[in-house]
Parts: sequence; structure tokens; C-alpha cells
Amino acid sequence: MFEPIAIDDPDDPRLAAYRFVRERDLVGRQGRFIVEGEVTLRLLFSFSARFAAESVLLAPERWAGLSDLFAQRAGRPPVYLAGRDVMSAVAGFPIHRGVLAVGLRGAEPAPAALIPPAPAPALVVGLVGLTNHDNVGGLFRNAAAFGADAVWLDAETCDPLYRKAIRVSAGAALTMPFARAASGSALLDLAERHALTPLALTPGGDETLDALEPPSRALLLLGTEGPGLPDAVMARARCLRIAMAVGFDSLNVATAGAIALHHLAGRRLAG
Amino acid sequence: MFEPIAIDDPDDPRLAAYRFVRERDLVGRQGRFIVEGEVTLRLLFSFSARFAAESVLLAPERWAGLSDLFAQRAGRPPVYLAGRDVMSAVAGFPIHRGVLAVGLRGAEPAPAALIPPAPAPALVVGLVGLTNHDNVGGLFRNAAAFGADAVWLDAETCDPLYRKAIRVSAGAALTMPFARAASGSALLDLAERHALTPLALTPGGDETLDALEPPSRALLLLGTEGPGLPDAVMARARCLRIAMAVGFDSLNVATAGAIALHHLAGRRLAG
Repeated sequence: MFEPIAIDDPDDPRLAAYRFVRERDLVGRQGRFIVEGEVTLRLLFSFSARFAAESVLLAPERWAGLSDLFAQRAGRPPVYLAGRDVMSAVAGFPIHRGVLAVGLRGAEPAPAALIPPAPAPALVVGLVGLTNHDNVGGLFRNAAAFGADAVWLDAETCDPLYRKAIRVSAGAALTMPFARAASGSALLDLAERHALTPLALTPGGDETLDALEPPSRALLLLGTEGPGLPDAVMARARCLRIAMAVGFDSLNVATAGAIALHHLAGRRLAG
Repeated sequence: MFEPIAIDDPDDPRLAAYRFVRERDLVGRQGRFIVEGEVTLRLLFSFSARFAAESVLLAPERWAGLSDLFAQRAGRPPVYLAGRDVMSAVAGFPIHRGVLAVGLRGAEPAPAALIPPAPAPALVVGLVGLTNHDNVGGLFRNAAAFGADAVWLDAETCDPLYRKAIRVSAGAALTMPFARAASGSALLDLAERHALTPLALTPGGDETLDALEPPSRALLLLGTEGPGLPDAVMARARCLRIAMAVGFDSLNVATAGAIALHHLAGRRLAG
């Protein structure tokens, strides 16, 4: 039987990876990331998760409700139990839900390894310069909802495994494959090499989204709400706009992405 | 020429409505609300705004860039200038942008007064039990983007004129007409009385959104992400679902609303 390990010393070295969660959010964790809360912990242990857990830290009263996660799993990580006061002292802020885990990033895959080879249908989301964790998390959630194969990120786009991005993604950051390329132009090079039609979503697009017959293989490119996609990216893509009311041309980028993914995924989805 | 009024005493009674902004957010303001930042201030003074400003409070260096708002306006409210330290002392938290205003709610209109009478086309969004300001703000933004005529709220749905909701709405809370009814059932009574087809968006819907021919007059009902719309509401509406990938049936409610509005608005929008 799998037994959790009780810890009552906030300085116990086995909790080192949980120390100063917020400060470390800013500087990175050398191959690790933090998961918070039951829903995301369950996703981290689901078959669709892409990452292994290094350890789990629970308030003792959460163990009974979560022990099923460890019953049937080979190679399960240690589970530490510590009171909420100890958890909060280690993490440096109040851990109300009493559920934390450390995930291991592993090696990041190559972008092309994540998508079905041509001529199979493929739908990829490309994020260029998105530095807001809410937007990146929301786009992962939407990419998962509409069955995208992968998310590709340029170098400037922020980390989908940042705590807030994982939370806003409803855990999709743990399951949706993603990889990085250097820039928007590098994403377009990949699209060319792998027979993906590059589509740029922009309020100034020549065509409306609704008029587009979804290509069988597509890369949907999204940029920040203010400056939008770089001109050099738009010049190499079909530029699409979402029809909106006169005098209002502003949607949140994650929302605009959802509308485009809904259109592009179309017949691929469960009716 | 319109002259702003310099104030350097945080206890000046003319600034009373700006005092303790955060604490007052929680208890209400007796017919007033607070607007923050240039974008929303400009919307409050635009022709499409539904509310009057009672006064404006600016850091002195913001005056030059905003004085155009007061040049051509009859009945303009007083503009107070105070340094950021005074503004922050009055408001009780740091006012980085140096732009605040107090708006007047006025009398709330009757729900039916906000929509075109039958048989003209009409698109109304009905929010039931939405207590998250991000979601309500996001839905106002999306309702504006897709040209909805109005938003109707049940009694439990939170205030669209709360500061955070205004900000997330990108100011649409100041321009999109809204009114309250007692409950989801009261919203359905209104729909019946005013020939609006009631549509309920729910993951368990019988029909997919895409298969629906948009009715000329519709009330789109949205509930909270967890519990969803009350059964009594769904029993009286056509229940629609958004087709999603197998194993993932979760979209943010504002995002789901945007997808449905995009479909329902369809031909009404600027191509």
C-alpha cells in the first residue's frame, strides 16, 4: 500500500522545491513547475498529461479524497503531508486549498514532432508576442476545447506552465502539446515546411473568417491585442478578420482565437 | 474657456466621492460608480455613453492630453487636478494612471425599453447567476462587439459598473444598455412577452449551435460555469451546445457567449 510521508518542519529539505513559490515564479525553476489545486493535480495524473510529477504536497485532510490517484500508478512520486500552516510557511503565501505538486518539464519537443504529417488534417495555434498569462492560459483552454493538435509559441510568448496560466487554462497547459520557435517568421517557415496554411487573425484582415472554407491543414496565428501581429508575419499569411458591430473592433485575443478555432475545427468536432 | 480646479488637500469635501475606493466597491455608492483610466474616461464622454459624469479627478500632467473632452461639451462636470500622492491618499491605493471619474447611474431602465419592438430583429443577452466580474465584463465586451441590443441581468448577477467589470469590458459596460429582472424565470417571461426566442447555452444541449438557423429575435441565456443555468430556465428554452473535442467540454462562459453571439449576429454584422 502506498503511504504518504508526514512532514512538520517547514525547513525539511524534501520541500525545497515548494519554497518561495511566488519569488521563484519570476526567475524560473530549472526544469520544474508548480501545480495548485485538485482539478489540475488530477490532470497532472491523467493519461493525457504530458508531464511527470516529482512530488505532491497535501494538507493531511486532503489525502483521503486524493489517494485514488496513487492507488493504481507505477512509479508514483512521493506524497508529503503537511498542515496548511507549514505549507503556507514553505510557499510564502496562504495555501487555502491544501493541494500543491511539483511537475517536471522534461525536454521540450521540436514543433514539428507535435503535429500529424501531411496530408493528414492538422490544426495548430501559433502565438506571437503574447506576454499576458491570462491570455495564454485562455488560448490553451480554447485550443483543447476545439481539438487543436498543438500550440506553437514564439520566444517572447510567456510560459504556459506559469501557475496562473495553468489555472486559467483549466489545466489544458498540462495536456495540450506545445513547443517553441524563435519568432513569428520561424513559425511561418515551419508552416511552409509542413504544408500548413498560415492564417493571421487581425482586425484589418481582407477576408472575413466566416467566408473562409477551413483548410485541411492550418496554422492560426495570434498576436497581442494592442500592436497585433508583426507586419512581416501578416505579409506571409492569409489575413482574416472577425465581423463585428460598426464602431467596435475589439475582442480579447483568447476570445477571438476561440471564435476562429470553432470555425476552423468545424467538422472535426463531436457534433 | 473651461478651467480645471486644483486641489491639494486630500480632505477637501469636493473629493468625497473618491474616498476609499476599494472599501466602497464592496458596499455600493448610492447611485455612483468609479471610472479609472483614459480609455474608459473617453468612453464616459462619448456619444454612446449611457451615463453622466459627476466629476473628474486628474493628475495635473494628464490635463493637457485630456482637455479636449471638455472643450466642446455643454453641462460638463468639474475637473479637479491633484497630484498622484493626493489622489492615492484619497482613494486609499496607488493611482498610477492619474485618471479617475465619478459616474452617475441614473434611473435603471425597464428591460423591455432597451430592445426594438417586434417584429424588428433583436438580439439580447441574458445573464443568470453570474457573480464573477471578469466574466460579466467579458460578456459586455462581447455583446458590444457583436452588436447585441441589450444585456438583461437577473438579481444575482454582479454589477457591470464595478471597477473591474468596466475595465474587463473595455468600457462596454458604459455603452451597452442593461437592465435587471428578478430571476431567470422573469427573463423568460420577458422573452415571451416580447417575442424573443429563448436560447440556453449549455454543454448538455440537444442541438448544436452551428445547426441553428439564427432566429430574428433571440434572448441568449448564459449561466455560471459550474452549476450552469437552472433547470427551470432550460426547460423553457431551446438548449444549444457548442461542439467541442471529445473529452473536453469546458469553455469560459464569456468565451462561449462570444461564439454564440458571433453565430447569432451573423448577417447583422459589418462584413
